[in-house]
Amino acid sequence: RSGEMAKLTQLIDNDVFRAYATYTTIVLLKMMLMSLVTAYFRITRKAFVNPEDTASFGKGESAKKYLRTDPDVERVRRGHLNDLENIVPFLGIGLLYALSGPELYTALLHFRIFAGARIAHTFAYLIPLPQPSRGLSWAVAYAVTISMAYKVLTTALYL
Amino acid sequence: RSGEMAKLTQLIDNDVFRAYATYTTIVLLKMMLMSLVTAYFRITRKAFVNPEDTASFGKGESAKKYLRTDPDVERVRRGHLNDLENIVPFLGIGLLYALSGPELYTALLHFRIFAGARIAHTFAYLIPLPQPSRGLSWAVAYAVTISMAYKVLTTALYL
Amino acid sequence: RSGEMAKLTQLIDNDVFRAYATYTTIVLLKMMLMSLVTAYFRITRKAFVNPEDTASFGKGESAKKYLRTDPDVERVRRGHLNDLENIVPFLGIGLLYALSGPELYTALLHFRIFAGARIAHTFAYLIPLPQPSRGLSWAVAYAVTISMAYKVLTTALYL
Repeated sequence: RSGEMAKLTQLIDNDVFRAYATYTTIVLLKMMLMSLVTAYFRITRKAFVNPEDTASFGKGESAKKYLRTDPDVERVRRGHLNDLENIVPFLGIGLLYALSGPELYTALLHFRIFAGARIAHTFAYLIPLPQPSRGLSWAVAYAVTISMAYKVLTTALYL
Repeated sequence: RSGEMAKLTQLIDNDVFRAYATYTTIVLLKMMLMSLVTAYFRITRKAFVNPEDTASFGKGESAKKYLRTDPDVERVRRGHLNDLENIVPFLGIGLLYALSGPELYTALLHFRIFAGARIAHTFAYLIPLPQPSRGLSWAVAYAVTISMAYKVLTTALYL
Repeated sequence: RSGEMAKLTQLIDNDVFRAYATYTTIVLLKMMLMSLVTAYFRITRKAFVNPEDTASFGKGESAKKYLRTDPDVERVRRGHLNDLENIVPFLGIGLLYALSGPELYTALLHFRIFAGARIAHTFAYLIPLPQPSRGLSWAVAYAVTISMAYKVLTTALYL
């Protein structure tokens, strides 16, 4: 049993894999934070979507008025969905990239730029900053993912 | 070739990894079930979003009236999106956690509570149960993911 | 250190894992393409959702008229979300399946049919093709994922 464990943990002992683990966890935690920001705006703006969520505000019409959309809530939700659309490819392609034997320096560069760009994207979306801030930060993270995909396909291609 | 295979399958022979594989497959299948529930409500409520989906109901205005939103359909879709937002972090952070060498007992506890909480969340959302049922089940699964992320970062941190 | 690297890269040397890496990267890139298609339609249809995105069209009412939904944009967005709902399960269950020691022939069959069905689904959604084109391509990819999940659970089950 301990022999198996040793071989498993050797994956997490590899520097490139550790870097992948670190930055993936950071961007996934950042994405999870969007749920809390949504909840914060729903409560402070009193803008809910499920009738059972407004029950504590009373019954009938007095509670129904809180079943509404709010621009700030919708903005956070769009940011959250954009995270899903871009962090899911990073999760999968980044894992395969980390296993494709890249140089540590190159791998760190990819992971750091991706994480930095997605954090910048969140600020650009939520503040919001004038364009092209949001567009650029989105494009940088997108390009990093394409670059990793290229490495995976040139290393592992088996159709 | 058989030597390589042996080393690959040794991952799936590890108890913690097998537990991760089992519970991840369960929660992903549960998430996939939401597609079928959405389809069921779309068909029984006759509430569609794509014009080509209502073609069998006839042409023109007679079909157009089925292009509408339905509260039950929208509720299932929100549950599905909430699954995506929470199961994607589990998929990534859980994998890294399983590779970070946790105790089998601790790992099972994390996986079981997460899966149980997400199944409870689905029931709370679809029935729907009065709050704080849905909020609590969401928070429990969220906290489990944070706990796994903490283990990953303390084991693997490489910035 | 080089010994560790050798063991890591042996994963990417395994044929089943290489096939998984290839098809996963392909379907994730296909999903990422949906972002570009959305951007293309938003710009050509002049249909935006964030006020800061229309600032270049001028100020006040002249820009506000571009804050609107467009049927083509919404169609691409639904296709994108459907990708997320179906490719995330493939990402997780497919990885576990690849590690569960399937025959190379069987694994390739699963991966190829999944990727083909999801590409067909995108064409069926965006053109759009009359039903049941979209429904069938969706169901085929769904069934492939269920089949892989069955293999994972029968190989690795640890509750």
